[in-house]
Amino acid sequence: AMDGAPPATSPSGLSAYVAVSQLLGLTLLATTGAWLGRYRGGVAWHSPLQFNAHPLCMVLGMVFLQGDALLVYRVFRHEAKRSTKALHALLHGLALLIALVGIIAVFESHKAKGIPDMYSLHSWCGMATFVLYLLQWLLGCGFFLFPGASFSLRGCYKPQHVFFGITLFILSITSCLLGITEMLLFKISDSYSHFVPEGILANTLGVLLVAFGLVVGYVLTREEWKRPPLAEELALSMDFKTLTEGESPGGGS
Amino acid sequence: AMDGAPPATSPSGLSAYVAVSQLLGLTLLATTGAWLGRYRGGVAWHSPLQFNAHPLCMVLGMVFLQGDALLVYRVFRHEAKRSTKALHALLHGLALLIALVGIIAVFESHKAKGIPDMYSLHSWCGMATFVLYLLQWLLGCGFFLFPGASFSLRGCYKPQHVFFGITLFILSITSCLLGITEMLLFKISDSYSHFVPEGILANTLGVLLVAFGLVVGYVLTREEWKRPPLAEELALSMDFKTLTEGESPGGGS
Repeated sequence: AMDGAPPATSPSGLSAYVAVSQLLGLTLLATTGAWLGRYRGGVAWHSPLQFNAHPLCMVLGMVFLQGDALLVYRVFRHEAKRSTKALHALLHGLALLIALVGIIAVFESHKAKGIPDMYSLHSWCGMATFVLYLLQWLLGCGFFLFPGASFSLRGCYKPQHVFFGITLFILSITSCLLGITEMLLFKISDSYSHFVPEGILANTLGVLLVAFGLVVGYVLTREEWKRPPLAEELALSMDFKTLTEGESPGGGS
Repeated sequence: AMDGAPPATSPSGLSAYVAVSQLLGLTLLATTGAWLGRYRGGVAWHSPLQFNAHPLCMVLGMVFLQGDALLVYRVFRHEAKRSTKALHALLHGLALLIALVGIIAVFESHKAKGIPDMYSLHSWCGMATFVLYLLQWLLGCGFFLFPGASFSLRGCYKPQHVFFGITLFILSITSCLLGITEMLLFKISDSYSHFVPEGILANTLGVLLVAFGLVVGYVLTREEWKRPPLAEELALSMDFKTLTEGESPGGGS
Protein backbone atom coordinates (compact mmCIF):
# COMPACT_ATOMS: atom_id res chain seq x y z
CA ALA A 1 0.00 0.00 0.00
CA MET A 2 2.86 2.39 -0.67
CA ASP A 3 1.76 3.33 -4.17
CA GLY A 4 -0.50 6.31 -3.53
CA ALA A 5 -3.02 4.56 -1.24
CA PRO A 6 -4.46 6.68 1.61
CA PRO A 7 -2.77 6.27 5.02
CA ALA A 8 -4.06 3.15 6.78
CA THR A 9 -5.69 4.75 9.83
CA SER A 10 -9.21 4.03 11.06
CA PRO A 11 -11.65 6.81 11.97
CA SER A 12 -11.06 7.46 15.67
CA GLY A 13 -14.66 6.94 16.76
CA LEU A 14 -14.81 3.57 15.02
CA SER A 15 -12.10 1.98 17.19
CA ALA A 16 -13.82 3.13 20.37
CA TYR A 17 -17.19 1.71 19.27
CA VAL A 18 -15.60 -1.59 18.21
CA ALA A 19 -13.80 -1.83 21.59
CA VAL A 20 -17.11 -1.25 23.41
CA SER A 21 -18.79 -3.91 21.24
CA GLN A 22 -16.12 -6.48 22.16
CA LEU A 23 -16.36 -5.61 25.83
CA LEU A 24 -20.13 -6.01 25.63
CA GLY A 25 -19.72 -9.31 23.76
CA LEU A 26 -17.44 -10.75 26.45
CA THR A 27 -19.78 -9.47 29.17
CA LEU A 28 -22.63 -11.26 27.38
CA LEU A 29 -20.78 -14.56 27.53
CA ALA A 30 -19.76 -14.03 31.16
CA THR A 31 -23.33 -13.15 32.15
CA THR A 32 -24.74 -16.21 30.36
CA GLY A 33 -22.10 -18.37 32.06
CA ALA A 34 -22.87 -16.83 35.45
CA TRP A 35 -26.62 -17.43 35.04
CA LEU A 36 -26.19 -21.08 33.99
CA GLY A 37 -23.36 -21.78 36.44
CA ARG A 38 -24.74 -20.11 39.51
CA TYR A 39 -28.48 -20.72 39.17
CA ARG A 40 -28.97 -23.54 36.65
CA GLY A 41 -26.40 -26.13 37.76
CA GLY A 42 -23.86 -25.55 35.01
CA VAL A 43 -23.48 -27.05 31.54
CA ALA A 44 -22.81 -30.70 30.63
CA TRP A 45 -23.63 -32.77 27.55
CA HIS A 46 -24.72 -36.31 28.53
CA SER A 47 -26.75 -35.26 31.55
CA PRO A 48 -29.95 -33.46 32.57
CA LEU A 49 -27.87 -30.28 32.20
CA GLN A 50 -27.64 -30.77 28.43
CA PHE A 51 -30.35 -28.13 27.90
CA ASN A 52 -28.03 -25.49 29.35
CA ALA A 53 -25.69 -25.90 26.39
CA HIS A 54 -28.48 -24.32 24.30
CA PRO A 55 -28.42 -20.74 25.62
CA LEU A 56 -24.62 -20.75 25.86
CA CYS A 57 -24.13 -21.91 22.25
CA MET A 58 -26.78 -19.57 20.86
CA VAL A 59 -25.36 -16.47 22.58
CA LEU A 60 -21.81 -17.41 21.54
CA GLY A 61 -22.67 -18.42 17.96
CA MET A 62 -25.75 -16.50 16.83
CA VAL A 63 -24.92 -13.26 18.67
CA PHE A 64 -21.24 -12.78 19.53
CA LEU A 65 -19.64 -14.53 16.55
CA GLN A 66 -22.31 -13.43 14.10
CA GLY A 67 -21.90 -9.83 15.28
CA ASP A 68 -18.12 -10.01 14.96
CA ALA A 69 -18.44 -11.51 11.46
CA LEU A 70 -20.50 -8.45 10.48
CA LEU A 71 -17.89 -6.08 11.91
CA VAL A 72 -15.00 -7.61 9.96
CA TYR A 73 -15.27 -5.19 7.00
CA ARG A 74 -15.15 -2.21 9.36
CA VAL A 75 -12.30 -3.46 11.56
CA PHE A 76 -10.04 -4.66 8.74
CA ARG A 77 -10.89 -1.76 6.46
CA HIS A 78 -7.39 -1.53 4.98
CA GLU A 79 -6.62 -5.24 4.50
CA ALA A 80 -6.99 -6.98 1.14
CA LYS A 81 -10.67 -7.60 0.43
CA ARG A 82 -10.04 -11.30 -0.30
CA SER A 83 -8.76 -12.12 3.19
CA THR A 84 -11.42 -10.00 4.92
CA LYS A 85 -14.10 -11.82 2.93
CA ALA A 86 -12.63 -15.22 3.91
CA LEU A 87 -12.64 -14.21 7.59
CA HIS A 88 -16.26 -12.98 7.26
CA ALA A 89 -17.33 -16.37 5.81
CA LEU A 90 -15.25 -18.30 8.37
CA LEU A 91 -16.71 -16.52 11.40
CA HIS A 92 -20.25 -17.01 10.08
CA GLY A 93 -19.45 -20.69 9.42
CA LEU A 94 -18.16 -21.11 12.98
CA ALA A 95 -21.27 -19.35 14.30
CA LEU A 96 -23.45 -21.77 12.33
CA LEU A 97 -21.60 -24.82 13.69
CA ILE A 98 -21.86 -23.66 17.31
CA ALA A 99 -25.53 -22.80 16.82
CA LEU A 100 -26.11 -26.27 15.39
CA VAL A 101 -24.64 -27.81 18.56
CA GLY A 102 -26.96 -25.55 20.59
CA ILE A 103 -29.99 -26.72 18.58
CA ILE A 104 -29.04 -30.39 18.96
CA ALA A 105 -28.75 -29.79 22.72
CA VAL A 106 -32.32 -28.59 23.04
CA PHE A 107 -33.83 -31.32 20.82
CA GLU A 108 -31.95 -34.10 22.68
CA SER A 109 -32.85 -32.64 26.06
CA HIS A 110 -36.54 -32.35 25.06
CA LYS A 111 -36.47 -35.96 23.89
CA ALA A 112 -34.94 -37.17 27.16
CA LYS A 113 -37.58 -35.30 29.17
CA GLY A 114 -40.56 -35.98 26.87
CA ILE A 115 -41.15 -32.29 26.12
CA PRO A 116 -42.71 -31.45 22.70
CA ASP A 117 -40.63 -29.47 20.19
CA MET A 118 -41.30 -26.36 18.14
CA TYR A 119 -44.54 -25.16 19.72
CA SER A 120 -43.39 -21.81 21.11
CA LEU A 121 -42.88 -18.43 19.43
CA HIS A 122 -39.23 -18.63 20.55
CA SER A 123 -38.75 -21.91 18.69
CA TRP A 124 -40.51 -20.58 15.56
CA CYS A 125 -38.43 -17.39 15.45
CA GLY A 126 -35.21 -19.15 16.41
CA MET A 127 -35.53 -21.99 13.91
CA ALA A 128 -36.58 -19.66 11.07
CA THR A 129 -33.58 -17.45 11.88
CA PHE A 130 -31.17 -20.39 11.90
CA VAL A 131 -32.45 -21.86 8.61
CA LEU A 132 -32.40 -18.46 6.86
CA TYR A 133 -28.93 -17.77 8.31
CA LEU A 134 -27.65 -21.03 6.84
CA LEU A 135 -29.27 -20.14 3.50
CA GLN A 136 -27.74 -16.64 3.60
CA TRP A 137 -24.31 -18.17 4.28
CA LEU A 138 -24.64 -20.59 1.34
CA LEU A 139 -25.80 -17.81 -0.98
CA GLY A 140 -22.98 -15.55 0.26
CA CYS A 141 -20.37 -18.24 -0.46
CA GLY A 142 -21.89 -18.91 -3.87
CA PHE A 143 -22.05 -15.28 -4.95
CA PHE A 144 -18.95 -13.77 -3.36
CA LEU A 145 -16.41 -16.48 -2.54
CA PHE A 146 -16.49 -18.74 -5.56
CA PRO A 147 -15.31 -17.15 -8.78
CA GLY A 148 -18.39 -18.02 -10.86
CA ALA A 149 -20.58 -14.94 -10.32
CA SER A 150 -20.01 -11.87 -12.50
CA PHE A 151 -19.37 -8.42 -11.05
CA SER A 152 -22.80 -7.19 -12.09
CA LEU A 153 -24.55 -10.16 -10.47
CA ARG A 154 -22.57 -9.58 -7.26
CA GLY A 155 -23.51 -5.92 -7.39
CA CYS A 156 -27.22 -6.82 -7.63
CA TYR A 157 -27.10 -9.30 -4.75
CA LYS A 158 -24.91 -7.30 -2.39
CA PRO A 159 -27.57 -4.87 -1.04
CA GLN A 160 -29.89 -7.85 -0.37
CA HIS A 161 -27.05 -9.72 1.37
CA VAL A 162 -26.34 -6.72 3.60
CA PHE A 163 -30.03 -6.08 4.42
CA PHE A 164 -30.77 -9.70 5.27
CA GLY A 165 -27.47 -10.01 7.15
CA ILE A 166 -28.42 -7.23 9.55
CA THR A 167 -32.01 -8.51 9.71
CA LEU A 168 -30.86 -12.01 10.71
CA PHE A 169 -28.57 -10.55 13.38
CA ILE A 170 -31.51 -8.61 14.84
CA LEU A 171 -33.75 -11.70 14.66
CA SER A 172 -31.07 -13.73 16.45
CA ILE A 173 -31.01 -11.27 19.34
CA THR A 174 -34.82 -11.16 19.41
CA SER A 175 -34.92 -14.98 19.58
CA CYS A 176 -32.48 -14.90 22.53
CA LEU A 177 -34.71 -12.44 24.40
CA LEU A 178 -37.71 -14.72 23.77
CA GLY A 179 -35.68 -17.66 25.04
CA ILE A 180 -34.68 -15.83 28.23
CA THR A 181 -38.33 -14.93 28.91
CA GLU A 182 -39.45 -18.53 28.31
CA MET A 183 -36.73 -20.00 30.51
CA LEU A 184 -37.50 -17.62 33.39
CA LEU A 185 -41.23 -18.35 33.21
CA PHE A 186 -40.54 -22.11 33.16
CA LYS A 187 -37.94 -22.15 35.94
CA ILE A 188 -38.78 -19.34 38.36
CA SER A 189 -42.40 -18.48 37.55
CA ASP A 190 -43.26 -18.24 41.25
CA SER A 191 -40.42 -15.96 42.31
CA TYR A 192 -39.76 -13.92 39.14
CA SER A 193 -42.24 -11.22 40.16
CA HIS A 194 -40.45 -10.77 43.52
CA PHE A 195 -37.32 -9.39 41.81
CA VAL A 196 -35.15 -12.38 42.79
CA PRO A 197 -31.45 -12.15 41.78
CA GLU A 198 -31.78 -14.78 39.03
CA GLY A 199 -34.56 -12.79 37.36
CA ILE A 200 -32.57 -9.54 37.57
CA LEU A 201 -29.46 -11.28 36.19
CA ALA A 202 -31.31 -12.82 33.24
CA ASN A 203 -33.12 -9.53 32.49
CA THR A 204 -29.72 -7.82 32.55
CA LEU A 205 -28.47 -10.40 30.04
CA GLY A 206 -31.40 -9.37 27.82
CA VAL A 207 -30.48 -5.68 28.14
CA LEU A 208 -26.83 -6.50 27.34
CA LEU A 209 -27.93 -8.39 24.22
CA VAL A 210 -29.88 -5.34 23.07
CA ALA A 211 -26.89 -3.09 23.83
CA PHE A 212 -24.54 -5.34 21.81
CA GLY A 213 -26.97 -5.26 18.88
CA LEU A 214 -27.27 -1.49 19.15
CA VAL A 215 -23.50 -0.85 19.10
CA VAL A 216 -22.85 -3.33 16.27
CA GLY A 217 -25.81 -1.92 14.31
CA TYR A 218 -24.53 1.64 14.76
CA VAL A 219 -21.03 0.73 13.55
CA LEU A 220 -22.46 -1.10 10.53
CA THR A 221 -24.86 1.59 9.38
CA ARG A 222 -22.72 4.71 9.91
CA GLU A 223 -22.00 6.02 6.41
CA GLU A 224 -18.49 7.39 7.09
CA TRP A 225 -17.33 4.10 8.59
CA LYS A 226 -18.11 1.95 5.55
CA ARG A 227 -15.09 0.23 4.06
CA PRO A 228 -13.54 2.39 1.33
CA PRO A 229 -12.53 0.46 -1.81
CA LEU A 230 -8.72 0.24 -2.00
CA ALA A 231 -6.96 1.88 -4.93
CA GLU A 232 -5.87 -1.48 -6.38
CA GLU A 233 -9.42 -2.89 -6.07
CA LEU A 234 -10.87 0.03 -8.00
CA ALA A 235 -8.29 -0.45 -10.76
CA LEU A 236 -8.84 -4.22 -10.84
CA SER A 237 -12.62 -3.94 -10.85
CA MET A 238 -12.46 -1.40 -13.68
CA ASP A 239 -10.13 -3.63 -15.74
CA PHE A 240 -12.45 -6.52 -15.09
CA LYS A 241 -15.57 -4.53 -15.88
CA THR A 242 -14.13 -3.49 -19.23
CA LEU A 243 -13.55 -7.14 -20.04
CA THR A 244 -16.93 -8.43 -18.91
CA GLU A 245 -19.29 -5.48 -19.50
CA GLY A 246 -22.71 -6.66 -20.62
CA GLU A 247 -21.79 -10.31 -20.29
CA SER A 248 -24.60 -12.37 -18.76
CA PRO A 249 -23.71 -14.38 -15.62
CA GLY A 250 -22.72 -17.94 -16.42
CA GLY A 251 -22.85 -17.21 -20.14
CA GLY A 252 -20.07 -19.01 -22.06
CA SER A 253 -16.95 -17.23 -23.40
CA ALA B 1 -44.46 21.41 -9.54
CA MET B 2 -44.65 22.48 -13.21
CA ASP B 3 -41.42 24.45 -13.18
CA GLY B 4 -38.90 21.82 -14.23
CA ALA B 5 -39.51 19.36 -11.37
CA PRO B 6 -39.16 15.64 -12.23
CA PRO B 7 -42.45 13.82 -13.00
CA ALA B 8 -44.22 12.87 -9.77
CA THR B 9 -44.22 9.08 -10.12
CA SER B 10 -43.06 6.63 -7.44
CA PRO B 11 -40.68 3.77 -8.22
CA SER B 12 -42.95 0.86 -9.16
CA GLY B 13 -41.58 -1.58 -6.57
CA LEU B 14 -42.11 0.93 -3.77
CA SER B 15 -45.90 1.09 -4.18
CA ALA B 16 -46.16 -2.70 -4.08
CA TYR B 17 -44.07 -2.95 -0.91
CA VAL B 18 -46.04 -0.17 0.78
CA ALA B 19 -49.31 -1.91 -0.18
CA VAL B 20 -48.05 -5.18 1.33
CA SER B 21 -46.97 -3.35 4.50
CA GLN B 22 -50.46 -1.86 4.93
CA LEU B 23 -52.11 -5.22 4.31
CA LEU B 24 -49.79 -6.75 6.93
CA GLY B 25 -50.54 -3.89 9.33
CA LEU B 26 -54.29 -4.42 9.07
CA THR B 27 -53.83 -8.20 9.42
CA LEU B 28 -51.82 -7.52 12.60
CA LEU B 29 -54.70 -5.56 14.11
CA ALA B 30 -57.27 -8.16 13.03
CA THR B 31 -55.16 -11.00 14.46
CA THR B 32 -54.69 -9.16 17.77
CA GLY B 33 -58.42 -8.48 17.89
CA ALA B 34 -59.23 -12.10 17.08
CA TRP B 35 -56.91 -13.38 19.83
CA LEU B 36 -58.33 -11.04 22.48
CA GLY B 37 -61.93 -11.40 21.31
CA ARG B 38 -62.09 -15.11 20.76
CA TYR B 39 -59.81 -16.44 23.52
CA ARG B 40 -59.37 -13.65 26.09
CA GLY B 41 -62.94 -12.40 26.60
CA GLY B 42 -62.60 -9.15 24.63
CA VAL B 43 -61.50 -5.67 25.67
CA ALA B 44 -63.14 -3.33 28.18
CA TRP B 45 -61.79 -0.52 30.36
CA HIS B 46 -63.42 -0.57 33.84
CA SER B 47 -63.40 -4.35 34.17
CA PRO B 48 -61.15 -7.38 34.68
CA LEU B 49 -60.67 -7.18 30.88
CA GLN B 50 -58.79 -3.88 31.17
CA PHE B 51 -55.48 -5.70 30.70
CA ASN B 52 -56.52 -6.68 27.18
CA ALA B 53 -56.42 -3.03 26.13
CA HIS B 54 -52.64 -3.27 26.59
CA PRO B 55 -51.72 -5.57 23.68
CA LEU B 56 -54.27 -3.91 21.38
CA CYS B 57 -52.98 -0.38 22.06
CA MET B 58 -49.33 -1.40 21.81
CA VAL B 59 -49.75 -3.18 18.46
CA LEU B 60 -51.81 -0.28 17.08
CA GLY B 61 -49.61 2.52 18.45
CA MET B 62 -46.05 1.23 18.79
CA VAL B 63 -46.11 -0.98 15.69
CA PHE B 64 -48.72 -0.03 13.07
CA LEU B 65 -48.80 3.76 13.55
CA GLN B 66 -45.08 4.03 14.32
CA GLY B 67 -44.31 2.01 11.19
CA ASP B 68 -46.58 4.17 9.05
CA ALA B 69 -45.02 7.33 10.50
CA LEU B 70 -41.63 6.04 9.32
CA LEU B 71 -42.99 5.32 5.82
CA VAL B 72 -44.38 8.83 5.34
CA TYR B 73 -41.26 10.21 3.62
CA ARG B 74 -41.29 7.33 1.12
CA VAL B 75 -45.03 7.40 0.40
CA PHE B 76 -45.35 11.19 0.02
CA ARG B 77 -42.05 11.57 -1.75
CA HIS B 78 -43.24 14.38 -4.02
CA GLU B 79 -45.25 16.43 -1.52
CA ALA B 80 -43.85 19.53 0.13
CA LYS B 81 -41.40 18.54 2.86
CA ARG B 82 -43.16 20.74 5.42
CA SER B 83 -46.48 18.88 5.26
CA THR B 84 -44.79 15.45 5.16
CA LYS B 85 -42.80 16.38 8.26
CA ALA B 86 -45.97 17.50 10.06
CA LEU B 87 -47.68 14.22 9.20
CA HIS B 88 -44.60 12.27 10.43
CA ALA B 89 -44.71 14.11 13.78
CA LEU B 90 -48.49 13.77 14.02
CA LEU B 91 -48.53 9.99 13.44
CA HIS B 92 -45.73 9.49 16.00
CA GLY B 93 -47.63 11.72 18.44
CA LEU B 94 -50.80 9.66 17.95
CA ALA B 95 -48.77 6.45 18.41
CA LEU B 96 -47.38 7.82 21.69
CA LEU B 97 -50.85 8.72 22.98
CA ILE B 98 -52.30 5.30 22.16
CA ALA B 99 -49.26 3.58 23.70
CA LEU B 100 -49.74 5.67 26.85
CA VAL B 101 -53.32 4.40 27.12
CA GLY B 102 -51.97 0.85 26.71
CA ILE B 103 -49.42 1.39 29.48
CA ILE B 104 -52.03 2.84 31.83
CA ALA B 105 -54.19 -0.22 31.12
CA VAL B 106 -51.52 -2.64 32.31
CA PHE B 107 -50.58 -0.65 35.44
CA GLU B 108 -54.23 -0.24 36.49
CA SER B 109 -54.99 -3.89 35.84
CA HIS B 110 -51.91 -4.99 37.84
CA LYS B 111 -53.02 -2.73 40.70
CA ALA B 112 -56.54 -4.17 40.70
CA LYS B 113 -55.17 -7.73 40.77
CA GLY B 114 -52.22 -7.11 43.13
CA ILE B 115 -49.60 -8.11 40.54
CA PRO B 116 -46.17 -6.43 40.87
CA ASP B 117 -44.99 -4.11 38.07
CA MET B 118 -41.82 -3.89 36.03
CA TYR B 119 -40.12 -7.14 36.99
CA SER B 120 -40.05 -8.89 33.60
CA LEU B 121 -37.73 -8.50 30.62
CA HIS B 122 -40.82 -7.54 28.56
CA SER B 123 -41.58 -4.66 30.94
CA TRP B 124 -37.93 -3.50 30.97
CA CYS B 125 -37.65 -3.52 27.18
CA GLY B 126 -41.10 -2.11 26.62
CA MET B 127 -40.79 0.73 29.12
CA ALA B 128 -37.29 1.68 27.92
CA THR B 129 -38.60 1.71 24.34
CA PHE B 130 -41.56 3.92 25.24
CA VAL B 131 -39.49 6.43 27.22
CA LEU B 132 -36.81 6.65 24.51
CA TYR B 133 -39.54 6.94 21.86
CA LEU B 134 -41.05 9.90 23.71
CA LEU B 135 -37.59 11.46 24.01
CA GLN B 136 -36.91 10.89 20.30
CA TRP B 137 -40.24 12.56 19.46
CA LEU B 138 -39.45 15.60 21.63
CA LEU B 139 -35.95 15.89 20.12
CA GLY B 140 -37.39 15.47 16.62
CA CYS B 141 -39.91 18.28 17.20
CA GLY B 142 -37.21 20.49 18.71
CA PHE B 143 -34.71 20.01 15.91
CA PHE B 144 -36.89 19.72 12.82
CA LEU B 145 -40.31 21.25 13.45
CA PHE B 146 -39.55 24.44 15.34
CA PRO B 147 -37.59 27.02 13.42
CA GLY B 148 -34.80 27.48 15.99
CA ALA B 149 -32.25 24.88 14.85
CA SER B 150 -29.80 25.81 12.11
CA PHE B 151 -29.40 23.77 8.93
CA SER B 152 -26.00 22.49 10.02
CA LEU B 153 -27.30 21.37 13.43
CA ARG B 154 -30.21 19.60 11.72
CA GLY B 155 -27.76 17.91 9.36
CA CYS B 156 -25.70 16.62 12.32
CA TYR B 157 -28.70 15.27 14.18
CA LYS B 158 -30.54 13.75 11.23
CA PRO B 159 -28.49 10.51 10.88
CA GLN B 160 -28.87 9.90 14.64
CA HIS B 161 -32.63 10.56 14.41
CA VAL B 162 -32.95 8.07 11.55
CA PHE B 163 -30.81 5.37 13.24
CA PHE B 164 -32.61 5.62 16.57
CA GLY B 165 -35.98 5.86 14.80
CA ILE B 166 -35.48 2.49 13.11
CA THR B 167 -33.94 1.05 16.31
CA LEU B 168 -36.96 2.07 18.38
CA PHE B 169 -39.30 0.55 15.80
CA ILE B 170 -37.38 -2.76 16.00
CA LEU B 171 -37.36 -2.62 19.82
CA SER B 172 -41.12 -2.01 19.79
CA ILE B 173 -41.70 -5.16 17.76
CA THR B 174 -39.29 -7.12 19.97
CA SER B 175 -41.18 -5.96 23.07
CA CYS B 176 -44.45 -7.14 21.50
CA LEU B 177 -42.97 -10.60 20.85
CA LEU B 178 -41.81 -10.77 24.48
CA GLY B 179 -45.28 -9.72 25.59
CA ILE B 180 -46.94 -12.44 23.47
CA THR B 181 -44.60 -15.09 24.96
CA GLU B 182 -45.29 -13.88 28.51
CA MET B 183 -49.04 -13.78 28.01
CA LEU B 184 -49.14 -17.30 26.54
CA LEU B 185 -47.03 -18.73 29.37
CA PHE B 186 -49.25 -17.01 31.95
CA LYS B 187 -52.59 -17.93 30.40
CA ILE B 188 -52.15 -21.27 28.61
CA SER B 189 -48.96 -22.71 30.12
CA ASP B 190 -50.53 -26.17 30.39
CA SER B 191 -51.84 -26.45 26.84
CA TYR B 192 -49.35 -24.30 24.86
CA SER B 193 -47.08 -27.28 24.18
CA HIS B 194 -50.02 -29.23 22.69
CA PHE B 195 -50.30 -26.83 19.74
CA VAL B 196 -53.72 -25.52 20.81
CA PRO B 197 -55.33 -23.00 18.42
CA GLU B 198 -54.75 -20.02 20.75
CA GLY B 199 -51.03 -20.75 20.85
CA ILE B 200 -50.82 -21.09 17.07
CA LEU B 201 -52.81 -17.88 16.59
CA ALA B 202 -50.61 -15.87 18.98
CA ASN B 203 -47.41 -17.31 17.46
CA THR B 204 -48.76 -16.31 14.05
CA LEU B 205 -49.31 -12.79 15.38
CA GLY B 206 -45.62 -12.81 16.35
CA VAL B 207 -44.60 -13.91 12.85
CA LEU B 208 -46.82 -11.20 11.31
CA LEU B 209 -45.16 -8.58 13.54
CA VAL B 210 -41.74 -9.70 12.29
CA ALA B 211 -43.01 -9.64 8.68
CA PHE B 212 -44.37 -6.09 9.10
CA GLY B 213 -41.03 -4.96 10.53
CA LEU B 214 -39.17 -6.65 7.69
CA VAL B 215 -41.21 -5.01 4.92
CA VAL B 216 -41.13 -1.55 6.55
CA GLY B 217 -37.39 -1.92 7.23
CA TYR B 218 -36.74 -2.92 3.61
CA VAL B 219 -38.66 0.07 2.26
CA LEU B 220 -36.84 2.45 4.62
CA THR B 221 -33.31 1.25 3.93
CA ARG B 222 -33.48 0.75 0.15
CA GLU B 223 -31.20 3.44 -1.27
CA GLU B 224 -33.14 4.12 -4.49
CA TRP B 225 -36.38 4.65 -2.58
CA LYS B 226 -35.13 7.44 -0.35
CA ARG B 227 -36.97 10.72 -0.79
CA PRO B 228 -35.25 12.89 -3.40
CA PRO B 229 -34.92 16.57 -2.44
CA LEU B 230 -37.32 18.66 -4.55
CA ALA B 231 -35.86 21.26 -6.88
CA GLU B 232 -37.30 24.14 -4.84
CA GLU B 233 -35.96 22.67 -1.57
CA LEU B 234 -32.46 22.45 -3.00
CA ALA B 235 -32.63 26.07 -4.10
CA LEU B 236 -34.08 27.19 -0.77
CA SER B 237 -31.60 25.23 1.31
CA MET B 238 -28.72 26.66 -0.71
CA ASP B 239 -30.00 30.21 -0.31
CA PHE B 240 -30.41 29.59 3.39
CA LYS B 241 -27.01 27.97 3.73
CA THR B 242 -25.35 30.98 2.14
CA LEU B 243 -27.06 33.17 4.70
CA THR B 244 -26.28 31.05 7.73
CA GLU B 245 -23.01 29.31 6.85
CA GLY B 246 -20.77 28.93 9.88
CA GLU B 247 -23.35 30.39 12.20
CA SER B 248 -23.43 28.53 15.54
CA PRO B 249 -26.80 27.13 16.64
CA GLY B 250 -28.70 29.44 18.92
CA GLY B 251 -25.83 31.93 18.91
CA GLY B 252 -27.00 35.52 18.38
CA SER B 253 -26.04 36.73 14.92
